[in-house]
Amino acid sequence: SAERVRQFGTTIFAEMSALAVQCGAVNLGQGFPDFAGPEWVKQAAAEAIAADANQYAPYIGVPRLREAIAATWQAHGWRSIDPQREVTVTSGATEALFGAVQALVNPGDEVILFEPFYDAYLPDVTMAGGIPRFVRLHPPTSGQSGWWFDLSELQAALSPRTRLLMLNTPHNPTGKVFRRDELEQIAELCQRYDVIVVSDEVYDQLVFAGAEHIPIATLPGMWERTLTINSLGKTFSLTGWKIGYAVGPAELNTALRAAHQWITFATATPLQYAAAAALEGALHNGYYDQFRAEYTARYHLLAEILESVGLPVLPTEGSYFLMADISATGFHDDVAFCRYLTQEVGVAAIPPSAFYARQHDLPLLARFCFAKRDETLRAAQQRLLAWR
Amino acid sequence: SAERVRQFGTTIFAEMSALAVQCGAVNLGQGFPDFAGPEWVKQAAAEAIAADANQYAPYIGVPRLREAIAATWQAHGWRSIDPQREVTVTSGATEALFGAVQALVNPGDEVILFEPFYDAYLPDVTMAGGIPRFVRLHPPTSGQSGWWFDLSELQAALSPRTRLLMLNTPHNPTGKVFRRDELEQIAELCQRYDVIVVSDEVYDQLVFAGAEHIPIATLPGMWERTLTINSLGKTFSLTGWKIGYAVGPAELNTALRAAHQWITFATATPLQYAAAAALEGALHNGYYDQFRAEYTARYHLLAEILESVGLPVLPTEGSYFLMADISATGFHDDVAFCRYLTQEVGVAAIPPSAFYARQHDLPLLARFCFAKRDETLRAAQQRLLAWR
Ligand SMILES: CSCCC(=O)C(=O)O
Ligand SMILES: CSCCC(=O)C(=O)O
Repeated sequence: SAERVRQFGTTIFAEMSALAVQCGAVNLGQGFPDFAGPEWVKQAAAEAIAADANQYAPYIGVPRLREAIAATWQAHGWRSIDPQREVTVTSGATEALFGAVQALVNPGDEVILFEPFYDAYLPDVTMAGGIPRFVRLHPPTSGQSGWWFDLSELQAALSPRTRLLMLNTPHNPTGKVFRRDELEQIAELCQRYDVIVVSDEVYDQLVFAGAEHIPIATLPGMWERTLTINSLGKTFSLTGWKIGYAVGPAELNTALRAAHQWITFATATPLQYAAAAALEGALHNGYYDQFRAEYTARYHLLAEILESVGLPVLPTEGSYFLMADISATGFHDDVAFCRYLTQEVGVAAIPPSAFYARQHDLPLLARFCFAKRDETLRAAQQRLLAWR
Repeated sequence: SAERVRQFGTTIFAEMSALAVQCGAVNLGQGFPDFAGPEWVKQAAAEAIAADANQYAPYIGVPRLREAIAATWQAHGWRSIDPQREVTVTSGATEALFGAVQALVNPGDEVILFEPFYDAYLPDVTMAGGIPRFVRLHPPTSGQSGWWFDLSELQAALSPRTRLLMLNTPHNPTGKVFRRDELEQIAELCQRYDVIVVSDEVYDQLVFAGAEHIPIATLPGMWERTLTINSLGKTFSLTGWKIGYAVGPAELNTALRAAHQWITFATATPLQYAAAAALEGALHNGYYDQFRAEYTARYHLLAEILESVGLPVLPTEGSYFLMADISATGFHDDVAFCRYLTQEVGVAAIPPSAFYARQHDLPLLARFCFAKRDETLRAAQQRLLAWR
C-alpha cells in the first residue's frame, strides 16, 4: 500500500460498532440514531425512485437540493447564497471534508486542528500531504464554564505556512458549541494569516438550551474564506443516506468541485430529491423545534443514567454526545475502559483518545451517544446498574 | 486551490450534458440510459427505505451485498471469493478507482494508462502524485480486426518504477474487449515488473456477439495483483445510485479500505440492499441475457442510423458506445464537430480527444452512446437526416 494510508488503523467507529455487535452490547458508541427518520422524507425517496430519478445527478448536485440548501441558509438568517455557484452536494460530509482538503492543501501546507478532533480530519490532512498543527481544547476546569482553548496556543500554532483551519461546531466529541467571542478570535487570526476555514457544522440543529449555533461564515470577513460543511444524516436521522454538502464562495466551491468530480463524481440521485424534500418541509412544519426538543429529552435521560451509576457527565451544548468522567471507575485508560464496558458490561462507548493525535495529558473520559430510543437508553441503564 | 486540482477543467460529461440540456439536443453523449432500471430492483430500494435500513452501513459494505457479489463471481465461473476480506463496496466505481490509486500509488510511482482512457484515470493518477505513462490503442486499421496496441510500446512504457497499470475492458470509449492473448501479454509483463492492475470492468455484462469478457484477475498469477472494479450503475440501468465495488485479494482490499474509510466512509445503505437484490435476482431470472439482447438491438439501430447519414462506425465489441468516423464531415477537430452537432444539429456526442493526454495523431472520431430508447435514437436520426 502507499505510504499515505500505511499507518492507518480502522476508524474507531467501525471497530467499536463491530465489537458491540459481537458482544451483543447496547451501542452508545458510533453516532447514529436507532430510530427512523421522518416518514415524509422516506416517502419522498420512494417516490423519486418510482419516478425514475435514478440516473446520474449533475455532479454539483440536483438543482432542487441546492436551492433547498440556499433556502435553509436564508431562513436561518445566515446569508443569501447562489445555489448554482455557492453550494456543492457530496457523498456525505465525509467526502466534502476529504475533497475540501484535497482541493485546498498543498504538500507542506500547515493545517490547524482543534484537539480532540473528529477522527477523519487528521487523515484528510495527511493524505493531502498537509502538516497538522494542534490546538488543545481543555475540559471545563479552572472556572471555565465549558471546553475552552488558549488563544495564545492558537496564535503560536499559526504561521505564514498555515493554509487551513478545520473547525467543528457543535463539536464532536466534546459537545462544545463555539461562542461568538471565540469565533471572533478565530476569525480575526484567520484573516490576519490569510487562512481558509473548513467548518464542519453537521450538528448545527442539535444545540441545547443556553447555547447558540453561529456559522463562522456569517462573521464579518469570513464568508470569503470559509467552506461550511453539513449533511442530512444527523439532522434527519438518516445517517446511511450519505448526502452532504459544502456552502461557500464560488472560488472555494470551484476548487472543491474540481476534486469532487474525480472522487465520486456525483451523489445518489433519488436520495438527493428526498433530501430536498426534507429541507423544504422542515422550513415549514416545525421539524427542527421538535427534533431539538426530543434530543433535549434524550440528552437529559442519558445524563441522569450516567450520573446515577457514578459517571459524572460534562455539560453538552450541542451534538449527539455526552462525555462522562471515568476517573472514579479505577481505569486509567479510556480504551481499556470502553473495551471493558462493551465486553463485560454490555454498553459500547467511544474512547475520546481516538480523537487526539498527542496522547499526553488526556482527560479520563468516555463518549456516549444519546441518539437512541428511550428503551435503548433504559436497557443501557439496566446493564450499568448491574455493574455498579 | 491546491496544485493537484488547479489544471482541471470540468469533466467532459458534465460539460456536454449541460450543453445538451441548454440546446435541447438529443443527448447521445454522457453514458447513461434514458430508460428505467428493473422494477424489482427499484422495489427493493423502496422496501429497504420503508424497513428503515437508513443508518450507516458497515464501511466495507453491507454483508448481503458483499455476498451477492461473491455469488456473482462464482456463478460466472470466475473465482470463489471471500465476501468478508475480498470485496469492498464504494460510492460508485469512480470512488473505487480514486481510492485504489490513493491506496496504492506513492508520489513518483509510474502508472500505465492505455490511451484513450476514461477521463477520470489521469486525475486519479496525478492527484496521488503518480506519473502517467501512456500506451496507445490504435483504431482498427492495417488489417487488425479491432483496436490494438503495440506490445513493444507497452514494454517500453514499463520500468522498475511502474507501480500500477489501469486496464479497462470492455473499453470506454473504443468499445474494445481485450482478447485473451492480449490479456496474457499484459499479465506476463505485470508479473515480470511486479505491477498491480486496477481493472475497470463496469461494462462486463455488455459484450456483443463474437467477443468474450475475461476478467484479467482470472488469468494465472493475476488474482494476487489485481483489483477488479465494477458497479451496478451500467449493468442495472441505475447510474444515479452510485454503488460500486472492488474485488481482489485481501491485501489490496485492506489498502483500499484504509483510503475508503476517510474518502466517503460508507455508501448509501438502502441502495446497497437493493443492489444485493439486483445481483441475487439476476443470477436466476435471465436478466443478463435479456439485457444483452436489448443492447445488441440498440447497438445495431444506432450503427445503422449513423451509417445512413455518412458517419461510418467502427465495430464495438462491448460497452454503451459507438465510435463514428467523422472525417467525411469536413471537420478537422472532434471538439468542434461535437459542439456543432450538439448546438446546430441537436444531437450531443462526446469528442474522444477528451480521453487522450497526448493530442497528436488522433483519429477523427465522435463517441455516441446507444443506451437510449428507440424513440430517442429515432429522434436523433430525424435530426441527423435533416443535417445530411
Ligand atoms: C462515520 S461514522 C461516525 C459517526 C460519528 O459521527 C461519530 O460517532 O462521531
Ligand atoms: C461519470 S459520467 C460518465 C458516464 C460514462 O461512463 C461515460 O459517458 O463515459
